Amino acid sequence: MHTPPESLLGLCQHMARQAKTASQELAVASTAAKNAWLLASAEALQKQSSVILQENAHDVATAPEFGLNAAAIDRLTLNEKRIAAMAEGMRQVAALPDPVGEVREGSIRPNGLEVLKVGVPIGVIFFLYESRPNVTVDAAALCVKSGNAVILRGGKEAQRSNSAAYRILHELLPQYHLPESCVQLVSTTDRDAVGHFLRMPQFIDLAIPRGGESLIRRVMDEAQMPVLKHYLGNCHVYVDSAADLDMAERIVVNAKCQRPGVCNAAESLLIHADVAAAFLPKIGAALRNAQVEIRGCTETCRVLNFAKPATEDDYGTEFLDLILSVKVVFTFDEAVQQIRRYGSGHTEAIITQDYATAKRFTKMIDAAAVMVNASTRFNDGFELGLGAEIGISTDKFHARGPCGLRELTTYKYIVLGDGQIRS
Amino acid sequence: MHTPPESLLGLCQHMARQAKTASQELAVASTAAKNAWLLASAEALQKQSSVILQENAHDVATAPEFGLNAAAIDRLTLNEKRIAAMAEGMRQVAALPDPVGEVREGSIRPNGLEVLKVGVPIGVIFFLYESRPNVTVDAAALCVKSGNAVILRGGKEAQRSNSAAYRILHELLPQYHLPESCVQLVSTTDRDAVGHFLRMPQFIDLAIPRGGESLIRRVMDEAQMPVLKHYLGNCHVYVDSAADLDMAERIVVNAKCQRPGVCNAAESLLIHADVAAAFLPKIGAALRNAQVEIRGCTETCRVLNFAKPATEDDYGTEFLDLILSVKVVFTFDEAVQQIRRYGSGHTEAIITQDYATAKRFTKMIDAAAVMVNASTRFNDGFELGLGAEIGISTDKFHARGPCGLRELTTYKYIVLGDGQIRS
Repeated sequence: MHTPPESLLGLCQHMARQAKTASQELAVASTAAKNAWLLASAEALQKQSSVILQENAHDVATAPEFGLNAAAIDRLTLNEKRIAAMAEGMRQVAALPDPVGEVREGSIRPNGLEVLKVGVPIGVIFFLYESRPNVTVDAAALCVKSGNAVILRGGKEAQRSNSAAYRILHELLPQYHLPESCVQLVSTTDRDAVGHFLRMPQFIDLAIPRGGESLIRRVMDEAQMPVLKHYLGNCHVYVDSAADLDMAERIVVNAKCQRPGVCNAAESLLIHADVAAAFLPKIGAALRNAQVEIRGCTETCRVLNFAKPATEDDYGTEFLDLILSVKVVFTFDEAVQQIRRYGSGHTEAIITQDYATAKRFTKMIDAAAVMVNASTRFNDGFELGLGAEIGISTDKFHARGPCGLRELTTYKYIVLGDGQIRS
Repeated sequence: MHTPPESLLGLCQHMARQAKTASQELAVASTAAKNAWLLASAEALQKQSSVILQENAHDVATAPEFGLNAAAIDRLTLNEKRIAAMAEGMRQVAALPDPVGEVREGSIRPNGLEVLKVGVPIGVIFFLYESRPNVTVDAAALCVKSGNAVILRGGKEAQRSNSAAYRILHELLPQYHLPESCVQLVSTTDRDAVGHFLRMPQFIDLAIPRGGESLIRRVMDEAQMPVLKHYLGNCHVYVDSAADLDMAERIVVNAKCQRPGVCNAAESLLIHADVAAAFLPKIGAALRNAQVEIRGCTETCRVLNFAKPATEDDYGTEFLDLILSVKVVFTFDEAVQQIRRYGSGHTEAIITQDYATAKRFTKMIDAAAVMVNASTRFNDGFELGLGAEIGISTDKFHARGPCGLRELTTYKYIVLGDGQIRS
């Protein structure tokens, strides 16, 4: 679809302005109204699944034109079970506590002022994502529950599926007295629209990109408002000299293989030299059995003849695939240095039975999640107890790690006095 | 001082790289070491005050060349009392709890994983400020206590005073086993250095500008890392129809006059029409008595013949002076609309004895601090119980309102397991 440049800017401005107004209404909407809409939408999604499936079939049919490979087409394809999962996601968000109005701290000052620090929505969120149509539903649910108006911009490959799901949720808003413009889907697939929205900090308070590196880079470069992003997940597992090697094997295999295409999968294995002779053949066999390609240091390749030599680049790569870089380190400090140099601040794990070493690792390593004797795969909103998440932040500012409902809010101070003045 | 462009970039890169390394050491420094340095620095500042005063005298002597007016020269001028206040500020920071290592939340998950959300430093902070030399000491104290390495860049007008104070603090760092590069002062006054630092997101995690609008705009435009800023403080006091008018008078006078040059001073007064006839003459006399210039709406000017007519611009202006815009509003909603349109999200106050109106105001108004029956001047780190502050954020992201030690930190998840894997 082609829109003339002027009217495209006008369209984007109109949407953003509408979102801003809607956000002020939504910020004071009741938890009951938001939950009722979530539950009604979940039901409607399932009842009207045939409409979504029909539109999805069109997207799937044209997917090869957009160059999608088989795995991407699989992620794009919906069926009754996947729609049921989308609906279930909305019900789970309804069940979570409302972060808006939550009193996070409070005190009475010596002069009698009562100070409350209260959760409030951020305002308007511009959410950009690729391919998977379930993200449309997830993002709408999380944003509305946290009181934020959202402008959704999905991938063009999923445009018809996204629109179908969106229409179902959207048309239910007025019934629950929620402002119609609190959820909007960008209907044009014109890439320039993204640039326009990213240059409207007066209307949009936060941009959240969810997708590949090029999308995220574009948003980082162009956004004039804060960005909450998941960037790279180059996660390490360090098997210490005091590791329980059976446990280490289970965790490494799980961290690498349980779902290799996701951000909290392990990409690099560090093994202390003291246990390399015992552990390398053991883990080598297990990984080979799981079809994992090993790219190893000299020592690794010496012991495992099927390993390929690792390049410098391999240690810095998020493979998102059944590939693992492996390096033998001679000291704890070398492991820390390697993680500091190549890690992306996402998830770093140590396997050790030594108390002091475990403590030192959690202190020295700065990442969104630092794990001791557990799989990197646990860095996830549900697993850490935050409920549904909109993504896992690799930023340090505002929110780090899994971003659930509370991370989609900010706070304000409410100060209740009875005539206090400053002297 | 002129530095050739290439070596200037090299110098900035060197400083930033040193700061990054220092930040990793400082992040794991003990609270005892940081506090000992703060206390020793406070003592040294007072003992070596003559050195600071001597350098400050040079700055003051050359101040007129930089176009500083009398008020600015007064703010630049140090004396024994002001140095004692700087030292006292450091002692107060030493007495505050360390936000690093603070366990903010924690839970044991059903699978036995122990999840801790722990306070950690942000990393490297680039702190830019103008004129007042005490800010050098305040910023160094707050950044080091919160575990952040800091690159300080003060105004050229205060360069000699800043350097003198900096040298005293800096030379004490090794004695307390703190990394030398955790506090650095930019010694060149070349403006290009600022641009270089703002384009080093790989080394610098956060930029904090503190100063006038043009400095803040420059940082917003050029920074490639997050920015924590205090922008504008266009604060309103709304005198409701149910206000106690004596209390309203005390609060308005205090909010406007107690320190008119600061961000939490009131800039605009809204009066409900029902009480305008009673309140306008009363507050008019009090403000006139305090030498406040009133720029009013038609109704205000009709009642107060000494008031000047307000322009549209006046309602949007942060005067930072003994000037107040005044508008009579006919409904509560009109007051809310006026604040939403012209307010800067800093501090907004209502004066009312009506319970429901007070509740509605705190709900409808989105600002860092929303006050009921109290002076806007209370939006301040000390007054709200946070201790010393590095500024008052008008942003919504990461931190809002007064930014103390905790707001200079982020968090990480520490996950303690005993072999858990995901199924």
